[in-house]
Amino acid sequence: MNKDNKKMNAIIILIGNEILSGRTQDANAAFLSRWLNELGVKVEEVRVIEDVQEVIVNCINEVRKKFKYVFTTGGIGPTHDDITSRSIAKAFNLIYGYNNEAYEILEKYYKPGEFNDGRKKMAKMPDKALLIYNPSSGAPGFIVENVYCLPGVPSILKSMVDGLKNNIKGGKKILSETISVNTVESEIAKSLEDVQNNFSNVEIGSYPFFRLGKVGVSIVMRSTEKNQIKDCAKQIQNFIQQKKIKIIETK
Amino acid sequence: MNKDNKKMNAIIILIGNEILSGRTQDANAAFLSRWLNELGVKVEEVRVIEDVQEVIVNCINEVRKKFKYVFTTGGIGPTHDDITSRSIAKAFNLIYGYNNEAYEILEKYYKPGEFNDGRKKMAKMPDKALLIYNPSSGAPGFIVENVYCLPGVPSILKSMVDGLKNNIKGGKKILSETISVNTVESEIAKSLEDVQNNFSNVEIGSYPFFRLGKVGVSIVMRSTEKNQIKDCAKQIQNFIQQKKIKIIETK
Repeated sequence: MNKDNKKMNAIIILIGNEILSGRTQDANAAFLSRWLNELGVKVEEVRVIEDVQEVIVNCINEVRKKFKYVFTTGGIGPTHDDITSRSIAKAFNLIYGYNNEAYEILEKYYKPGEFNDGRKKMAKMPDKALLIYNPSSGAPGFIVENVYCLPGVPSILKSMVDGLKNNIKGGKKILSETISVNTVESEIAKSLEDVQNNFSNVEIGSYPFFRLGKVGVSIVMRSTEKNQIKDCAKQIQNFIQQKKIKIIETK
Repeated sequence: MNKDNKKMNAIIILIGNEILSGRTQDANAAFLSRWLNELGVKVEEVRVIEDVQEVIVNCINEVRKKFKYVFTTGGIGPTHDDITSRSIAKAFNLIYGYNNEAYEILEKYYKPGEFNDGRKKMAKMPDKALLIYNPSSGAPGFIVENVYCLPGVPSILKSMVDGLKNNIKGGKKILSETISVNTVESEIAKSLEDVQNNFSNVEIGSYPFFRLGKVGVSIVMRSTEKNQIKDCAKQIQNFIQQKKIKIIETK
């Protein structure tokens, strides 16, 4: 990777026992990762942690110093197991209470008489948090320093990130190119390693797959430098041709 | 959760840039989590980390002290980006070299002349590692102390874990019951919190869903104590009935 992107990193923290237990398959990490990638931010770690205040506080206080951006998903709803907002306040040693703007948004969003205690809870946040607006279901997320707190429901999360673009100062966009070939990894391992050694600015990954009963390998090149990817791809295509391996797809 | 299970915990470490970049959707964490759950081991954290030796070494050395079981997936194949085995050796300060048994297994598995350098690499492991046999594609995983290293390809991983059952000493099996209701979270938040306060041994989770255009909430109770779940479910059904909320499904 190019050095410009070295510090443009992020960690995604998925907060929720339902993912840890295997009950729910997470979809947010892959979405956020691709979205951040477009903005030139590289996701370097994902963690799934329990709905336990001490766990959340310790995790946030560890990672907010190590990563430029921290994204959390989950735990900002109305029920007793939604403890992200309270835990973030604790991590930053901030007061946890009603955010006036969030309160007003929610008061307007619900019909008169429907703004009950559970819903009011969603307006409680760490003091001075900035809001992340929610065009689909009212309840906002929030930002404290470099920590961005989003909900766990994927469709709602997706509707909210667009409004965040101006908050994220990324580096160069990370580009990628994939060459999928009809072989097994061990047949190309040595040649691929040689190519990797020629390109310190390109990260080459090798991923075996089984598709329609056929084995294959996807060779993925990632870099912020378009020309480097192009030159790297040329060297890969050269040895693929020499080995008489069939290219299934390039993209 | 019951205290018996307190130390019967595990962390799953997914090693691979392809998951971090959002290119590949992980399927191993949910599978391993459910499998461990059956054995009475609670997965308390999942991490996805980069294919970078320093990152793997630091991560393993942190978590192997904190969790009873550490499972890694990915990075034990034949290519240059497969650096899990070497990194685990480094983390434990062990020599990284050919494991005789693994070498013999792979030598037999491949046809004469096909046991090339890439494939030989898959026999390289930390010194004195115990093998995890692979009934589907030859190359074994391995165990060093409390760290269990498995491959990243889900079908191969699944075929390997059965042989591990006797190595895992779990606690009581974690049972769960789900009541799905036709309401929104905020309508039941207060009552659910009251029930949670009555049952310290039952973990109650509340998960909103949208299905066939309808909103609903799945209330999930998890505990090692069957009777506690039963009593807890009764209290939940009581307030659901009082509130005239429709039960969609119990399981």
